[in-house]
Amino acid sequence: MKIVIVGGGFGGLYAAQALRRVANAEVTLVDKRNFHLFQPLLYQVATGSLSPGEIAAPLRSVLKNQHNTQVLMAEVTGIDPVAKTLALDGGLDSLTYDSLIVATGSRTSYFGNDGWAEVAPGLKTVEDATRIRHKILRAFEAAEKEDNPEIRRAYLTFLIVGGGPTGVELAGAIAEIANDTLRHDFREIRPEESRILVLDGGPRVLGAFPEELSAKAERSLLKMGVRTRNGVRVTSVDADGVVLHSGERIPAKTVLWAAGVAASGFGKVLCTATQCETDRGGRVLVGPDLTVPGHPEIFVIGDAAAVKGKDGNWLPGVAPVAMQQGRYAARLAANPSLPRKPFEYFNKGNLAVIGRASAVADFGWLKVSGFFAWLLWLFVHLMYVVEFENRLLVFIRWGIQYFTFSRGARLITGEPVREPETPVVRS
Amino acid sequence: MKIVIVGGGFGGLYAAQALRRVANAEVTLVDKRNFHLFQPLLYQVATGSLSPGEIAAPLRSVLKNQHNTQVLMAEVTGIDPVAKTLALDGGLDSLTYDSLIVATGSRTSYFGNDGWAEVAPGLKTVEDATRIRHKILRAFEAAEKEDNPEIRRAYLTFLIVGGGPTGVELAGAIAEIANDTLRHDFREIRPEESRILVLDGGPRVLGAFPEELSAKAERSLLKMGVRTRNGVRVTSVDADGVVLHSGERIPAKTVLWAAGVAASGFGKVLCTATQCETDRGGRVLVGPDLTVPGHPEIFVIGDAAAVKGKDGNWLPGVAPVAMQQGRYAARLAANPSLPRKPFEYFNKGNLAVIGRASAVADFGWLKVSGFFAWLLWLFVHLMYVVEFENRLLVFIRWGIQYFTFSRGARLITGEPVREPETPVVRS
Repeated sequence: MKIVIVGGGFGGLYAAQALRRVANAEVTLVDKRNFHLFQPLLYQVATGSLSPGEIAAPLRSVLKNQHNTQVLMAEVTGIDPVAKTLALDGGLDSLTYDSLIVATGSRTSYFGNDGWAEVAPGLKTVEDATRIRHKILRAFEAAEKEDNPEIRRAYLTFLIVGGGPTGVELAGAIAEIANDTLRHDFREIRPEESRILVLDGGPRVLGAFPEELSAKAERSLLKMGVRTRNGVRVTSVDADGVVLHSGERIPAKTVLWAAGVAASGFGKVLCTATQCETDRGGRVLVGPDLTVPGHPEIFVIGDAAAVKGKDGNWLPGVAPVAMQQGRYAARLAANPSLPRKPFEYFNKGNLAVIGRASAVADFGWLKVSGFFAWLLWLFVHLMYVVEFENRLLVFIRWGIQYFTFSRGARLITGEPVREPETPVVRS
Repeated sequence: MKIVIVGGGFGGLYAAQALRRVANAEVTLVDKRNFHLFQPLLYQVATGSLSPGEIAAPLRSVLKNQHNTQVLMAEVTGIDPVAKTLALDGGLDSLTYDSLIVATGSRTSYFGNDGWAEVAPGLKTVEDATRIRHKILRAFEAAEKEDNPEIRRAYLTFLIVGGGPTGVELAGAIAEIANDTLRHDFREIRPEESRILVLDGGPRVLGAFPEELSAKAERSLLKMGVRTRNGVRVTSVDADGVVLHSGERIPAKTVLWAAGVAASGFGKVLCTATQCETDRGGRVLVGPDLTVPGHPEIFVIGDAAAVKGKDGNWLPGVAPVAMQQGRYAARLAANPSLPRKPFEYFNKGNLAVIGRASAVADFGWLKVSGFFAWLLWLFVHLMYVVEFENRLLVFIRWGIQYFTFSRGARLITGEPVREPETPVVRS
């Protein structure tokens, strides 16, 4: 029984691990990267709290003792659903499967304005995170050297487009950098005078949370010096700031994009071959058993799939959904003849962190905010960080940071960024 | 009293710190990077034991409480020794000094064959280290996917050119990766069958150490599966291997360059302006007080300077020399009228690590090798790792690695490397 899993994120990795003791399964996990990334903590890499290596675990190392499983570092470029084979890049032989689990995840979406990616990085990959880190730190460095007060102001203005959990986390972390971490680091500027703005199209930040928690989050952000502006739409982004739909221009040298994701490209390839359908975000519309119509052996899970929950709403693109779908798909992939009870998502609760000792948690029957929600967030995230070694390192980094306000991972590496050098447009 | 220090390596940072309590000093430390890098552990980043953030400390953060000191992230592009000003990149105002300390360090040298840099990375920067890490890990990944046994062999062959401490450290670490870390990670290849070769032009590895320690090092390496070939010269390097002066070709997809360094470019700029002289390696020939002839206010220290020791030999390009010179230069820079007692290097001993529980140490009156030398090496390096937080993290990483043989920092990031894809030439 050959089971191929494409993608080593939460969905793919949990599917692979669920197949650990299935004796007749020959599992191949294909990923173009050699590591599993713990995405929920990626914003901490972007803001200098953690190093990339501390939230990533080599897939081979995670699965090394799972003897029925092989890891292949390759990109899947095509599929033949009749012959049941996958085409791979780099002149590799094609891969045959009896069951296929597609867990290819999502990428940042600029809603058709792909040019904005140049100036307003999103936060999906390790490269994104280090790019954002460099952008933030360079902005303070540039402000320190700048004489023109207007340009200096633009360097000290940080715009986050999108007020979901990622946007809120980024804004909170940047506020901590400005208020605490860098407080005594500069001589010419006062980092604590930075302007940090979250721009959101909806009526409030954390729109997926109950209103009272959104309100608490906005208040917490305000206390940290982060202003939120709701109901605004960004119509243009360039190296010097954004323009809102009202025509207002906000000058800012740092614009971060946390406004949207779309499924990775493989869903479209799959749907061309099997005549399935994708939604506007490129996610594959699958049946209640997470398979593609007409192909009970092809599962699509996690951010790559569009699935409705019991309440009729689309399931969110979060790790717990992918993990549960991974386990569900693995079981059916290994035993195709089992009765196909529809997938049901069990929502254990939603968490979003705002900053130091500040978070919100929604368990449906219970809503918590503040220090206790933050402790919960810490606990849950440490528990899920994949390898023991990383868990310990992350724990220590956090401990030190909590007491000293320092952030260790503040390197600006790589070639000097060639940002377009245009003068700041006056607003 | 304006003191400008160019470069935040060991020399520059120790000079800055020595000026901490000098009340009338206005110190500016200029570096094009925003961090101090603990170079002696860079090979551990290259071989996946540590993350870059764990051996780097932001300069601003190291010097934040030193109120007479300002950090400037900029590149120095020129000097006017008459007006006593430095030109900076990026349209910044020039910087005036009363005393100048040049501590611009060194870079990898290919002895005129700069084209080799493309295929055989050296180990001087964080970017070099991650590039080497990717190269090593990708080689195993490629071997796993390769059917042709000859090409597979080339992927599992690792050549290190240069048998000094860096070459020996890299070879030992690669051997540990192959023998232990990756042992159970692959299904098609056996990483422990990798061929690891150190090529050295001299009669023995670690040529700066006493003969008996070189012999011990070679024996330790051999036990780990690393062969050393002395008295060979490399005449050509390409993506598929090297050619020796004998005409012999060694096919290898991974060639690392640890054969030489030259001073960074600023020394030449300085000497054009002040009519000083540089040696073949671009190092500035300075007087006994480390100043440039005719300019008692311009000091050159560390790898940027060529200075003779008491025994008449040139001082080696190691951290202790730079640190001692930094302190020496700082004192005279702040008090130009002090009598100029010539700089004297106090050699506390030389250490080189080979691998797990294996190192050599030379104190002149005492020569040690094996476990005790390794403990010494550990202790010394932990003591000097700059920030407390990093020290703790490095200590924990090492502890875990010692007992589990695992290496946490094994990410392959960045764009796929476009290595020239030529067939392996048969030897």
